[in-house]
Amino acid sequence: MSAAAFDHPWLSGLFADPQIAALWSGQAQLTHMLTFEAAWSRAGHLAGLWSEQDGEAAAVAIAAAQIAPEDLAEGTARDGVCVPALVKMLKAVAGDKAVHIGATSQDVIDTAMVLSLVGTLDVLAARLTELQGVLQALENRFGDLPLMGRTRMQAAVPITVRDRVQTWRLPVSDHLARLDQLRPRIAKVQIGGAAGNRAALGDHGAAVSAAVAAELGLAPTDRSWHAMRDGVAECASALSLITGSLGKMGQDVALMAQQGLAEIAMSGGGGSSAMAHKQNPVLAELLVTLARFNAVQVSGMHQALVHEQERSGAAWSLEWMILPQMAQATGRALSAAIGLGNSVERMGDPSAE
Amino acid sequence: MSAAAFDHPWLSGLFADPQIAALWSGQAQLTHMLTFEAAWSRAGHLAGLWSEQDGEAAAVAIAAAQIAPEDLAEGTARDGVCVPALVKMLKAVAGDKAVHIGATSQDVIDTAMVLSLVGTLDVLAARLTELQGVLQALENRFGDLPLMGRTRMQAAVPITVRDRVQTWRLPVSDHLARLDQLRPRIAKVQIGGAAGNRAALGDHGAAVSAAVAAELGLAPTDRSWHAMRDGVAECASALSLITGSLGKMGQDVALMAQQGLAEIAMSGGGGSSAMAHKQNPVLAELLVTLARFNAVQVSGMHQALVHEQERSGAAWSLEWMILPQMAQATGRALSAAIGLGNSVERMGDPSAE
Amino acid sequence: MSAAAFDHPWLSGLFADPQIAALWSGQAQLTHMLTFEAAWSRAGHLAGLWSEQDGEAAAVAIAAAQIAPEDLAEGTARDGVCVPALVKMLKAVAGDKAVHIGATSQDVIDTAMVLSLVGTLDVLAARLTELQGVLQALENRFGDLPLMGRTRMQAAVPITVRDRVQTWRLPVSDHLARLDQLRPRIAKVQIGGAAGNRAALGDHGAAVSAAVAAELGLAPTDRSWHAMRDGVAECASALSLITGSLGKMGQDVALMAQQGLAEIAMSGGGGSSAMAHKQNPVLAELLVTLARFNAVQVSGMHQALVHEQERSGAAWSLEWMILPQMAQATGRALSAAIGLGNSVERMGDPSAE
Amino acid sequence: MSAAAFDHPWLSGLFADPQIAALWSGQAQLTHMLTFEAAWSRAGHLAGLWSEQDGEAAAVAIAAAQIAPEDLAEGTARDGVCVPALVKMLKAVAGDKAVHIGATSQDVIDTAMVLSLVGTLDVLAARLTELQGVLQALENRFGDLPLMGRTRMQAAVPITVRDRVQTWRLPVSDHLARLDQLRPRIAKVQIGGAAGNRAALGDHGAAVSAAVAAELGLAPTDRSWHAMRDGVAECASALSLITGSLGKMGQDVALMAQQGLAEIAMSGGGGSSAMAHKQNPVLAELLVTLARFNAVQVSGMHQALVHEQERSGAAWSLEWMILPQMAQATGRALSAAIGLGNSVERMGDPSAE
Repeated sequence: MSAAAFDHPWLSGLFADPQIAALWSGQAQLTHMLTFEAAWSRAGHLAGLWSEQDGEAAAVAIAAAQIAPEDLAEGTARDGVCVPALVKMLKAVAGDKAVHIGATSQDVIDTAMVLSLVGTLDVLAARLTELQGVLQALENRFGDLPLMGRTRMQAAVPITVRDRVQTWRLPVSDHLARLDQLRPRIAKVQIGGAAGNRAALGDHGAAVSAAVAAELGLAPTDRSWHAMRDGVAECASALSLITGSLGKMGQDVALMAQQGLAEIAMSGGGGSSAMAHKQNPVLAELLVTLARFNAVQVSGMHQALVHEQERSGAAWSLEWMILPQMAQATGRALSAAIGLGNSVERMGDPSAE
Repeated sequence: MSAAAFDHPWLSGLFADPQIAALWSGQAQLTHMLTFEAAWSRAGHLAGLWSEQDGEAAAVAIAAAQIAPEDLAEGTARDGVCVPALVKMLKAVAGDKAVHIGATSQDVIDTAMVLSLVGTLDVLAARLTELQGVLQALENRFGDLPLMGRTRMQAAVPITVRDRVQTWRLPVSDHLARLDQLRPRIAKVQIGGAAGNRAALGDHGAAVSAAVAAELGLAPTDRSWHAMRDGVAECASALSLITGSLGKMGQDVALMAQQGLAEIAMSGGGGSSAMAHKQNPVLAELLVTLARFNAVQVSGMHQALVHEQERSGAAWSLEWMILPQMAQATGRALSAAIGLGNSVERMGDPSAE
Repeated sequence: MSAAAFDHPWLSGLFADPQIAALWSGQAQLTHMLTFEAAWSRAGHLAGLWSEQDGEAAAVAIAAAQIAPEDLAEGTARDGVCVPALVKMLKAVAGDKAVHIGATSQDVIDTAMVLSLVGTLDVLAARLTELQGVLQALENRFGDLPLMGRTRMQAAVPITVRDRVQTWRLPVSDHLARLDQLRPRIAKVQIGGAAGNRAALGDHGAAVSAAVAAELGLAPTDRSWHAMRDGVAECASALSLITGSLGKMGQDVALMAQQGLAEIAMSGGGGSSAMAHKQNPVLAELLVTLARFNAVQVSGMHQALVHEQERSGAAWSLEWMILPQMAQATGRALSAAIGLGNSVERMGDPSAE
Repeated sequence: MSAAAFDHPWLSGLFADPQIAALWSGQAQLTHMLTFEAAWSRAGHLAGLWSEQDGEAAAVAIAAAQIAPEDLAEGTARDGVCVPALVKMLKAVAGDKAVHIGATSQDVIDTAMVLSLVGTLDVLAARLTELQGVLQALENRFGDLPLMGRTRMQAAVPITVRDRVQTWRLPVSDHLARLDQLRPRIAKVQIGGAAGNRAALGDHGAAVSAAVAAELGLAPTDRSWHAMRDGVAECASALSLITGSLGKMGQDVALMAQQGLAEIAMSGGGGSSAMAHKQNPVLAELLVTLARFNAVQVSGMHQALVHEQERSGAAWSLEWMILPQMAQATGRALSAAIGLGNSVERMGDPSAE
């Protein structure tokens, strides 16, 4: 039973994002790794590593392999990475000839990670678009109503609800633009071999890359990006930009919901164990929590850019600890923001009703 | 299936610390919460909240309650905290009269967190002591052998293995001293009630605090520390100081293990999927990863110090997301450092043999 | 005398970037603020705030105003922001009629910040392009020479110098693409007035924005972005991505320079107070330091996204503390990387010579 | 002119702490370094490095040396550290015989840093004690007045002003205890020589350490702590714990000052360039800013714990960039909190008056 908030037996009620979690689960990652290995077996003949027939046979056997994620734990403990154990299992069912040769652990794991990441970007983009609609609807319903503008936590001059809600909605289109722009910098296969230079592929690196990429729905690459992690860290930054904007929305809602101000009313809201009368703005606070969480984590993804030589076990593993959590935090923040927006029953200065 | 490194089906092979994980599991936290609630039921009569007999009966019923951690997920989703749902379940088995009245969610959850934290400190202290012995043994075996001293990553002047190993060993006693000094600032009950001022306890706050504390093996408190989180953040800082020192040891070992230097040899070591001849210093790199991970996380625990008013849902939840991971990272770093130290077969300049 | 590394009497020898520092100096920011205020005076007649003639006269007077940056310190201490004091001084020389009315502090300061930031992006882009050339030249000179590929800090298989240098050079073009893509999201005027909704401009907000933007060489905006800081945090993230990539280069060089490996030789290199024979890879280490520095700071810029209501004094001021330092760290990292690249005299396995 | 907030021509009005800044200025650090070098010259005869007479003569000459901080910039640019240039200048006035021999750059710089740090701890402790008094006075004046207790940003149940102010005051004594406890772990000389093992001192390391320590008012050490930075990072953590507690106070005050709640009134308060009627809680917001700033920076000090081998130029320089800023942020937060406390004119629910 996990102590992590996203998987915790009850905290998951608040923090979990099942759709994103599924994209990063061990099962999904294993499936992605098997997909890579099968594509590799199919492509290897292009570099003369084995015959097309042997490659196809191996790919079929890999696709049919029965491996449980847990089976890789012992090998990971020993090797620091799951692929040696995985390859051994695959060779047991698919033979030695046309399996993994010419590839390396990082090719497999990074490509699998990219597939999870691309899936995440798709989910996030869809939710960002949904959130735009939810916030536009709030503007349509309440936009003309008066609200006290507040600067430096002090009443400034009257504004409208529209003015406030636009500060939540307008960044969404910029976030969508960012995801579009960064996608080609990350949605691409990792193929490098032992030391990243595709030594085993001779002059056929481009052909193998194109074939594997086509099978996986990713872009091909001219060379490996094993030790160039700026695309990954850029993704992480974009995730945290999203949660940061939503954290601003959450902070605003929590402040508007204060008694004495009462500038917003929502359905639902959390109960208290000590005070039956209270309605806590749980989702609004959650948005602040997730914003601060990702703003912390993004630092780790940037630290991991210092990725020495051809492969840094230390920096690479740091990504494993952080990126899946950032993805889940971002997904959950978006679903919480959508839920929060949909729960609004009233906005604006209460005296204006 | 968790995407978090500590609970991941195969990454757990590398990252998991079962002993620490057990201290922070949902089951353990639930047990701690039930222990608090039972102690509370037993103590309430001291403040005239109910009769001693009713309190004892409720405590017995609470201790016998059959609640699964997962049962609290739905309530947590709604309330942002698991306690309202828990209390409802407890009242169903122990009656309304002598359950939770006068306490609040944060009393229950923070006290349960403290029990996990104190258990963690005990484990860490034991491992720090064990590590001291392991490192002392390395000094005893290899201490007199020559080693090139290196400053700014350049050969400086010859030193001995002892000089290097002491930079790993000597901080351990300071870490032990820190844990001793901070323990009384955190190993204490959280009792405040709805808004933290023990309003329901009248003049009997001290008596109730003393009784509950005695039952839980914690120190009593003069008032709640709901919104004063410096003790928690101090613990987190101490955890990261430990992993930071161990990260230095790991970085040193990884550098010593480089071919061309070969200043250390270890048994075990990770295999590669592409290069059968390699022995990767997996545990050494893991120490660096965990050091950088905690150095990132500690920032979040310090951000959570800005805990507004009598209870900040946002800041408090941020602790839930981070502290259990820091505890596990620290525990794992210590077990990895012990394992790494025990695996050393040779140290010092290879030409000196 | 400053204790900050960038301005420190001697640490500045190592850390300072005079060109970037000049863009962020008090004098430059004051000049930017005066430019904004003059443009505002010139544009106000478009919203009927004053006559074109009065606006022109005020603009001329503002441009001629003699104000020392230090003169704004007392007002900043009182108001938390320098603009009220600045406006008072400007009114003393340019009259009350056509000065600042309809604008607010944040319009002035954020637009001034954008001008510094855009100037920074220009410098960084030029240096990135220069660095590309320097690294390409290294590939041309040394690219075919053998080098031991190293993964997880262990010798893996032989590669070439080109393989290593490409991991430094290839990210540069992605960094340039990022700067191009984010520029339109930040190179734009800040115009909002007291609570951000341009209330004082009536239906003429677009006209005023266009006029001010044209005068400042920025893009106009449809509304203020006072409380939407994702553009600023995105810039900060891009800065840290750059330093992160350069940190990887620095770490590689420092590792290559180790005695026993000797895979690189550079001219220059730092002396030691204790060991006359040493040549320390000072610039390489500096790159690592600046990478880790920015990776820390980027967290603060993301925390500042939680910018409550129409203006958060707390979150906004946090940007002031961090962003100028990140700009300088990035500029310095680029100049150090260029200097380091230019100092290389030999690369590759020494036995290959 | 500095772009750093603490030294900026006008931001310094808000951020500067002249007393702490003076402790970390180049001039103060240079004075500390000269003090160390003089003490070293005086102590060297104890290890037979030179005669007592020569040492005394050198010490006198060092004390009279005319060196401007700026003179060390060029050498720092070249060597990455100021000491080689400094030692050259000292030898020019004090001769070669009894200057610096047996010591190293890090001995000088770290000891100088410790002297600044110890001075900082003294100032902070005095201000913490003053703040306790200010907050106790608030309790005395307003403590019995009613205030709405607020949890999760919602009205909970009535409390008193005392309950709120105690959450600001009570952590202060724990902070004082922490400073007392960590002081012996940092207030000690750094003496190691080239590779940290006091090789040049033979059997006389303890005697030299004792003599230098006595002269500097620090504790002696058994060996150098060049590469064991836990004491430094612990100090940084303690600084951030202090600012975090004060950030909670600042956030509370900013929330209490909101119109519609009006639970506090203060004299002073910042003006607005656009709204003459506003009184902004500038100091309260500043406390939040400084708390978040230090919570970011503390991460960098923990990253710097990964200090490879006998001296890491990269990790050590990172401390130089961060620690002086944290010291100033903490000092300023304390003076701001004292000023804020002293400015309070009214606290409690306004209806209670």
